[in-house]
Amino acid sequence: MIIENVAPEIDGGRAAAKGSEGATFKVSADIFSDGHEVLAADILWQPSGAGAWSRAPMHFVDNDRWSGHFVPLSVGRYLYSIEAWRDTFASWRRDTQKKLTAGVDVRVEIHEGLELVEAAQGSGLDADLLGELAQRLGAASSDEHAELLLSDEVAALMAGVGPRAAVSHRTPVLELVVDRRAALFSAWYEMFPRSQAGDPGRHGTFEDVIERLPYVRDLGFDVLYFPPIHPIGHTNRKGRNNALIAGPDDPGSVYAIGSEEGGHTAVHPQLGTIESFRKLVAAARAQEIEIALDIAVQCSPDHPWIKEHPEWFDWRPDGTIKFAENPPKKYEDIVNVHFEGKAFPEVWFALRDVIAFWADNGVRIFRVDNPHTKPIPFWRWLIREINAKYPDVIFLAEAFTRPKMMQKLAKIGFQQSYTYFTWRNTKSEIVTYMLELTGDMADYYRPNFFVNTPDINPYYLQTSGRPGFIVRSTLAATLSSVWGLYSGFEICEARAIPGREEYLDSEKYEIRADNMDRPGNIKQHIRALNHIRRSNAALQDFRGFLPLLSSNDQVLVYARHTPDWDNCIIVLINLDPYNRQGSQYEIPLWKFDLPDWAMVDVEDLLNGNRFQLHGKTHTIEIDPAHGPVAIWKLLPPSWRVNA
Amino acid sequence: MIIENVAPEIDGGRAAAKGSEGATFKVSADIFSDGHEVLAADILWQPSGAGAWSRAPMHFVDNDRWSGHFVPLSVGRYLYSIEAWRDTFASWRRDTQKKLTAGVDVRVEIHEGLELVEAAQGSGLDADLLGELAQRLGAASSDEHAELLLSDEVAALMAGVGPRAAVSHRTPVLELVVDRRAALFSAWYEMFPRSQAGDPGRHGTFEDVIERLPYVRDLGFDVLYFPPIHPIGHTNRKGRNNALIAGPDDPGSVYAIGSEEGGHTAVHPQLGTIESFRKLVAAARAQEIEIALDIAVQCSPDHPWIKEHPEWFDWRPDGTIKFAENPPKKYEDIVNVHFEGKAFPEVWFALRDVIAFWADNGVRIFRVDNPHTKPIPFWRWLIREINAKYPDVIFLAEAFTRPKMMQKLAKIGFQQSYTYFTWRNTKSEIVTYMLELTGDMADYYRPNFFVNTPDINPYYLQTSGRPGFIVRSTLAATLSSVWGLYSGFEICEARAIPGREEYLDSEKYEIRADNMDRPGNIKQHIRALNHIRRSNAALQDFRGFLPLLSSNDQVLVYARHTPDWDNCIIVLINLDPYNRQGSQYEIPLWKFDLPDWAMVDVEDLLNGNRFQLHGKTHTIEIDPAHGPVAIWKLLPPSWRVNA
Repeated sequence: MIIENVAPEIDGGRAAAKGSEGATFKVSADIFSDGHEVLAADILWQPSGAGAWSRAPMHFVDNDRWSGHFVPLSVGRYLYSIEAWRDTFASWRRDTQKKLTAGVDVRVEIHEGLELVEAAQGSGLDADLLGELAQRLGAASSDEHAELLLSDEVAALMAGVGPRAAVSHRTPVLELVVDRRAALFSAWYEMFPRSQAGDPGRHGTFEDVIERLPYVRDLGFDVLYFPPIHPIGHTNRKGRNNALIAGPDDPGSVYAIGSEEGGHTAVHPQLGTIESFRKLVAAARAQEIEIALDIAVQCSPDHPWIKEHPEWFDWRPDGTIKFAENPPKKYEDIVNVHFEGKAFPEVWFALRDVIAFWADNGVRIFRVDNPHTKPIPFWRWLIREINAKYPDVIFLAEAFTRPKMMQKLAKIGFQQSYTYFTWRNTKSEIVTYMLELTGDMADYYRPNFFVNTPDINPYYLQTSGRPGFIVRSTLAATLSSVWGLYSGFEICEARAIPGREEYLDSEKYEIRADNMDRPGNIKQHIRALNHIRRSNAALQDFRGFLPLLSSNDQVLVYARHTPDWDNCIIVLINLDPYNRQGSQYEIPLWKFDLPDWAMVDVEDLLNGNRFQLHGKTHTIEIDPAHGPVAIWKLLPPSWRVNA
Repeated sequence: MIIENVAPEIDGGRAAAKGSEGATFKVSADIFSDGHEVLAADILWQPSGAGAWSRAPMHFVDNDRWSGHFVPLSVGRYLYSIEAWRDTFASWRRDTQKKLTAGVDVRVEIHEGLELVEAAQGSGLDADLLGELAQRLGAASSDEHAELLLSDEVAALMAGVGPRAAVSHRTPVLELVVDRRAALFSAWYEMFPRSQAGDPGRHGTFEDVIERLPYVRDLGFDVLYFPPIHPIGHTNRKGRNNALIAGPDDPGSVYAIGSEEGGHTAVHPQLGTIESFRKLVAAARAQEIEIALDIAVQCSPDHPWIKEHPEWFDWRPDGTIKFAENPPKKYEDIVNVHFEGKAFPEVWFALRDVIAFWADNGVRIFRVDNPHTKPIPFWRWLIREINAKYPDVIFLAEAFTRPKMMQKLAKIGFQQSYTYFTWRNTKSEIVTYMLELTGDMADYYRPNFFVNTPDINPYYLQTSGRPGFIVRSTLAATLSSVWGLYSGFEICEARAIPGREEYLDSEKYEIRADNMDRPGNIKQHIRALNHIRRSNAALQDFRGFLPLLSSNDQVLVYARHTPDWDNCIIVLINLDPYNRQGSQYEIPLWKFDLPDWAMVDVEDLLNGNRFQLHGKTHTIEIDPAHGPVAIWKLLPPSWRVNA
């Protein structure tokens, strides 16, 4: 028995596949054998360490490809493998039926069939049923033998207990990590807690954040993510707009972590205390919002670790500490910790304890800053360690670097990953990228489509005006099952440092208080997007993407669908934020086995209208001034033949 | 250090890659690391069991991809792996140069550089050169230190001896099987020895075959392959055209192997003796022709093994032997041997001894009949066993079955494989199939393009007339580096059993004596094809295939080329054997970095003419009556910039 080309099998089994609790996990393989016998195969699976295998049957698909599935019901690590064999009785049955049809004398074959039933009785399986069958065969005439032996009833019985030949050595055992649903489906809102007082002259507190929770909830978000909330260093503190020298009242960059007031397990004293933080976590949970924290490993020069553990840091021949740098650039307000040499393993333990500290204070989602500049083996170890104690913790990798490193971080355990989404703007860029993300990568890489971040003020939004914000939020919220925005996006904030992809007066370096009710805001659209996502299974998994033919390069049309197409959303977007654009486009009637001239009901999910589309090809004109996007739910007639 | 996506790496390293003696073997991988340090990598390789690794440097290509190569000089099994590391000195050099350029004070950096040189002195490598460097640094002023430390000379020295950080665990060791050149490049001629007397009433002998050797050599073939040459059974012997009952003078099917006169290690008494067979092998070798034999595992009911080893065969409940069958079809003149149960391991040993017997009698190429109906583990074992003793033996898999089984046989050791070539007739079929064969499959699957076989009289040739034979032989001989024909093709023989892909009056069941000088034969064309192949490196490896744009679906144009394009053959074929067809086509000037308006010299290899083509796009008209193909050698000007 040959079993190969198993999918998912990532890097020859060296990385685990990702699954979601309660979601079908599909396994496929090429299964074949010499000769012409009837084959059968099972998936074997178990929660890692359970010891006993469960079985799920596999079915032949095409061209030696077989497929099956199982449903892991809880979070944790699972094992899976495949077993295949030749079904001797089924082979006998098929061949004997062929000979009967061809009018060949099969008396010897019937005798062989009786011998196979006899052999099965020795197996100890289904002894009652087999005993009954033996009795019936004993009482039957030799003419009746053929009919009984070739019946579907005996075939079903013998499939379970009949002789199996050439039972495969099982395939190497592969690993599956099952995460909770939020890893696959959630909507993120990012805010700076210190800006939540509503007054740029006053430092916000966790109490202020609690008052903002209904706002976040009203927009439909369920993850609220904060950049670092720790004490900020004063040595070489950065001023507004990343100035090298801070003014006397400048609060500093939140990423310059640590001061005499504490490091990675302390909260900035002006935000509150650990107790007030816990109160915030509880208040959020009561409104079905999770708090996500930022893990940035670097230290300000005033971080307590530098005095306590000088061996964790790089010192130069002149006795000064080595700042983080990307030559010739130097980051004078932060230093990096070592992961090797004298810092090993203490730094690893210390960082694990930082995560465990926040987990003990109720945090279950961590966004990791720049993981690609720290050792891969460290992350692999850290995520395993934390998940062993807190299986529901989710790590999001904030690596904006070369593709293979981003993929590697997902392979070694990060449950979610940032993407290139903010730099994919044209129709062909978006389609190509989605086909990549929803192809083999989907087995291990879960994209989180942020439309903006404190570090990324996309060029497209700097000039697009309001229609562009609607376009980009619609893309993110309908293309990826996890999406997010950084506060200000909903009021179309895009003022930039000229020529750069960065925000002017960045909140990273100062406290802001924008008017979130500013005219022209798109809060209603954001609210609608998150509502549509919650009501449609097709948008709760990033897989199930089909680009649809449209004749105009400015008009992007795609379907998002569940695996069996029982929920199908059509999204039509005019990517040009300035001009009305018309396009021919196609509705995927063929996916419902409908003819090209069929009629389908459509529900417009943004305005609630219902209408009908007749046939496959249509035209649309989209004016960005009146709304650059349409989101439709297809309601194909119930007489569709199959999906 | 991350090293992944190594190529070749077949099924996660479970199968060996194939290489050719004296040919460059290229290894690529994704190599990257956290952080921004300068990386370096080597391929490690050795003949299997040598113990010590040789090293070949790898170079960065693009997008974290690295590549390198080595040249295995002899036949046998090799191991290869990859090692990568961070080059600490090179990183220091790059960063310090950047800072110098930016005008930053680098005094501390120079001090760090001196420390790195000092550390290298402890490595024990290149101690003399390092000692000399230390002396020069000692004598230098501090201004001169920078210049010397940053020099190319010191960089080259330190690349070999300087500190290496994060040296990778090597990648898992992968295997390479290096075969002799004939596995990759040869031209096969298939004939039935018993038909070589030139008289259908007389049984040919090995002596007769010796007299035909100059004919085979003159056509340019270097492998002469015989269907089975063993004694033929008389029980249920097949008559002419596969009749169920043989006439009194019918010689029987050569595939009904074995009689009282012997089995798989005997020769048919009317062909000669083992001694006369050896004489034939020697005579062929003197003319640079190798003899290839057919290994068909089945036995006639009269094979000596059936009496000697009844336990190797299937017996039915009524005491009769079980014939080979494909229900409802039965093959009454052959029975199959068992490979398992009571036949194991004796059958395995017996079949190995059969191969060894013929190898001891000078045969080094075996064409294996229907390997896909016998166990894969048997072939894997057999090929290893035989190649351990006879490393130059080549096995050709005659499996015409589903694609994955054909690929599997190549993965487990078959050095050559039959293909779907005879069923690929249209331009898109041919191009698609070639792209598949020359893609990832090329790492392990070496195609042998037979234009016909005793079992396959292709439909295309049954109606194409002479132009079709020129088309198909040109395709086979220029697309694959191994090609072959079955005797009769050169005289355009295509008479078929009506409606079937089989020859009328098949030589499998009778002795024939066709006139090989028949008018309209294409011997001159076959001779030219084999001559062109021997003179052009591009045609001596099946890789290096580029389909070229042509505007007419009946006109196929492609380039065959060496890896660096220093030999480039353009083939133009009118696939329509009846009608003149015209087409626009393109010459791949861009592969020589030539502009679209450049001029290239061209040599017409079929008629010896020389001419010039100006520019990229041209038109051609091909009249099948005057010759349906053109084979050109491109002679680009020597001023090409790079390949």
